[in-house]
Amino acid sequence: MRVMGVDPGLTRCGLSVIEGGQGRQVIALDVDVVRTPADQPLQRRLLTISDTVEHWMDTHRPDVVAIERVFSQQNVSTVMGTAQAGGVIALQAAKRDIEVHFHTPSEVKAAVTGNGAAGKAQVTAMVTRILALQQKPTPADAADALALAICHCWRAPMIARMAAAEAQAAEQRKKYKARLKAAAK
Amino acid sequence: MRVMGVDPGLTRCGLSVIEGGQGRQVIALDVDVVRTPADQPLQRRLLTISDTVEHWMDTHRPDVVAIERVFSQQNVSTVMGTAQAGGVIALQAAKRDIEVHFHTPSEVKAAVTGNGAAGKAQVTAMVTRILALQQKPTPADAADALALAICHCWRAPMIARMAAAEAQAAEQRKKYKARLKAAAK
Repeated sequence: MRVMGVDPGLTRCGLSVIEGGQGRQVIALDVDVVRTPADQPLQRRLLTISDTVEHWMDTHRPDVVAIERVFSQQNVSTVMGTAQAGGVIALQAAKRDIEVHFHTPSEVKAAVTGNGAAGKAQVTAMVTRILALQQKPTPADAADALALAICHCWRAPMIARMAAAEAQAAEQRKKYKARLKAAAK
Repeated sequence: MRVMGVDPGLTRCGLSVIEGGQGRQVIALDVDVVRTPADQPLQRRLLTISDTVEHWMDTHRPDVVAIERVFSQQNVSTVMGTAQAGGVIALQAAKRDIEVHFHTPSEVKAAVTGNGAAGKAQVTAMVTRILALQQKPTPADAADALALAICHCWRAPMIARMAAAEAQAAEQRKKYKARLKAAAK
């Protein structure tokens, strides 16, 4: 499974692609950070991010895009830009029929370090070790994008099991309703 | 000047197009609300909004897109979806080189009712009167999209004056710096 990890943002947007193999085996294929100047109008910045992401999707052809889920308890203006960038990225995935999953920062930290409240340095150190990289990925947004992709690879079997269980439950509810209806007649 | 007004949202996204003429003269050309089902994945909902907005932009060819600026003090999950939808719409404008402007809800209310804290009913009543509509636009998102477009038409001359003043100030700063540099030699 090929996963594109995205740490969305206007000033710096982290992008990564990793290939998940047997068990917990993961290989880094690419990582980069798109930067857009703060003095440009918002729509120009979103266009730069969108064009880069489109190029990545068409080059790497990921099966899944894993995006960091943002919360608005952080800095208000940053969060809005982050959400807008995330929306643009999800849109480009939808256009290509690529699955999209969102993971919270603590889910990502917990997946790679075992601690949902781990600091940036710890996340970077674990990402470097897990992917057996020659050097630490910088800036932090690059490491975060890799961590997101790893997190998705490792959570994917659980997500698939949950989706299957949910589908089964929905099926049973349908059958139960049909039985009730038949009994009422 | 042809202005497309957008009240962004995932569940309901208000779209309008109005034509601004001499002074405060404004004519409504189109208004509608795009709805996307809450049980669809986010990226599918964004794609529906994006496709509709692209169709509107290509049909109506607006000079400007006026989008409501969202703040995160409201309901967290709603605000994120609203920001994501707004980002997608700004992106489609950027792709077509259409100007984008953001107006806050209180700027819009103040423009059409004279009161930045006006209620929905008052905004709808004023929009109906200003555009001389036969009946009230519903739902509220439709009225809001029209109010946004009116707000932009009426604020545009002021925005243009401010941009001109800013450009002039930047020019003067540049000249001043050049003089300082020449004097230092």
